[in-house]
Amino acid sequence: MALIKVLEKVLDANDKIAADNRRFFAEKKIVAVNLMSGPGAGKTTVLEKTLPPLVRKFPAAVIEGDIATTADAERIAALDVPVVQINTDKLGGACHLEALGIQTALAELPLDGVRYLFVENVGNLVCPAEFDLGETLKVGVLSVTEGEDKPVKYPLLFRVIDLLLLTKVDLLPHLRLDLDRLLANVRSVNAGLRVVRFSAVTGEGLAEWLEWLEGHAPAR
Amino acid sequence: MALIKVLEKVLDANDKIAADNRRFFAEKKIVAVNLMSGPGAGKTTVLEKTLPPLVRKFPAAVIEGDIATTADAERIAALDVPVVQINTDKLGGACHLEALGIQTALAELPLDGVRYLFVENVGNLVCPAEFDLGETLKVGVLSVTEGEDKPVKYPLLFRVIDLLLLTKVDLLPHLRLDLDRLLANVRSVNAGLRVVRFSAVTGEGLAEWLEWLEGHAPAR
Repeated sequence: MALIKVLEKVLDANDKIAADNRRFFAEKKIVAVNLMSGPGAGKTTVLEKTLPPLVRKFPAAVIEGDIATTADAERIAALDVPVVQINTDKLGGACHLEALGIQTALAELPLDGVRYLFVENVGNLVCPAEFDLGETLKVGVLSVTEGEDKPVKYPLLFRVIDLLLLTKVDLLPHLRLDLDRLLANVRSVNAGLRVVRFSAVTGEGLAEWLEWLEGHAPAR
Repeated sequence: MALIKVLEKVLDANDKIAADNRRFFAEKKIVAVNLMSGPGAGKTTVLEKTLPPLVRKFPAAVIEGDIATTADAERIAALDVPVVQINTDKLGGACHLEALGIQTALAELPLDGVRYLFVENVGNLVCPAEFDLGETLKVGVLSVTEGEDKPVKYPLLFRVIDLLLLTKVDLLPHLRLDLDRLLANVRSVNAGLRVVRFSAVTGEGLAEWLEWLEGHAPAR
């Protein structure tokens, strides 16, 4: 019983701080995009392809979440995009980001004029989906190499996201993947979910993804 | 402060039950193998390839851990191997297995004569590594499609495992993967770790993996 009480308290605190973050993003007219996936689905690579064309029109910033290393933040910094790395060993949960980590990171970022803030969550299909960060949009990233069954095995994540990027589609000819079954599994947990086929190798899907992002830009 | 106390209590309870499980496996002369990986690395496929040749010599059983669905248990049952599915929504942690879940599942399995028990953990590179199940061996499964950086980004898992199965190596010709860097990253967190290259498509590595398993069979 004591355990349940403590967990409720933690969740409430997160929800309160997430609401603060949401208000902050609305006031600053920033679209905050929370990218969630299992390990190695290609979130950082998606950002590496997304940021150069996006920042030509709209300034952007990135918060990177990882248990350890600054490897992803270095890949973003190489694009001249402001980035803060959260190592969850030290702040927030170990296997996911929490709203307090985002709030702390926001204070470290130059946000003047920024219109898109990407949050790359810890690579994990479970816990990140449970924690509101106050973000504007939740985006799932799933690699076609992960098999057909992930949407039904990790239903919460696929239920809460606003868009699914299906990555590494250039590998489809080399995989024994039943793509129709994968898409049917997506639909079984989130009937209307938009799915964008994406390949960092061929460039497939990049224009569609950018268009979707720009469609969510708040009026200034 | 209250939260820290509660977490300590939970961890202690798990360690106590894990010790009970370890004693049980030693008495019954069962090798319990805890398979851990991110989502879609191929744990169930590894079992589908491992069990048919293994059970011709040694009876085996399987405990499947998933948040939702019995999809993996059905794939094991199709091989005529006894299997219990744990759906973590109802028992133990949501994003990992705990020792109590294993103990509960053991009571449901016909274990007479069984020498290998495989535990397929929830697909997650973070939390499963933190919880002792009382297993004999911890095995990591990493797909070459997940990139070079996973060992340094999820160091605990790669530090605690006894062997790493590097899966989907048949895809290497189609990937931009620096295999040497991946192996150097593995060594940087666990210098002596044995790595077995594995492909369910070509059969590469299956004999080496079976030999390693059989080398850990307890004398009867």
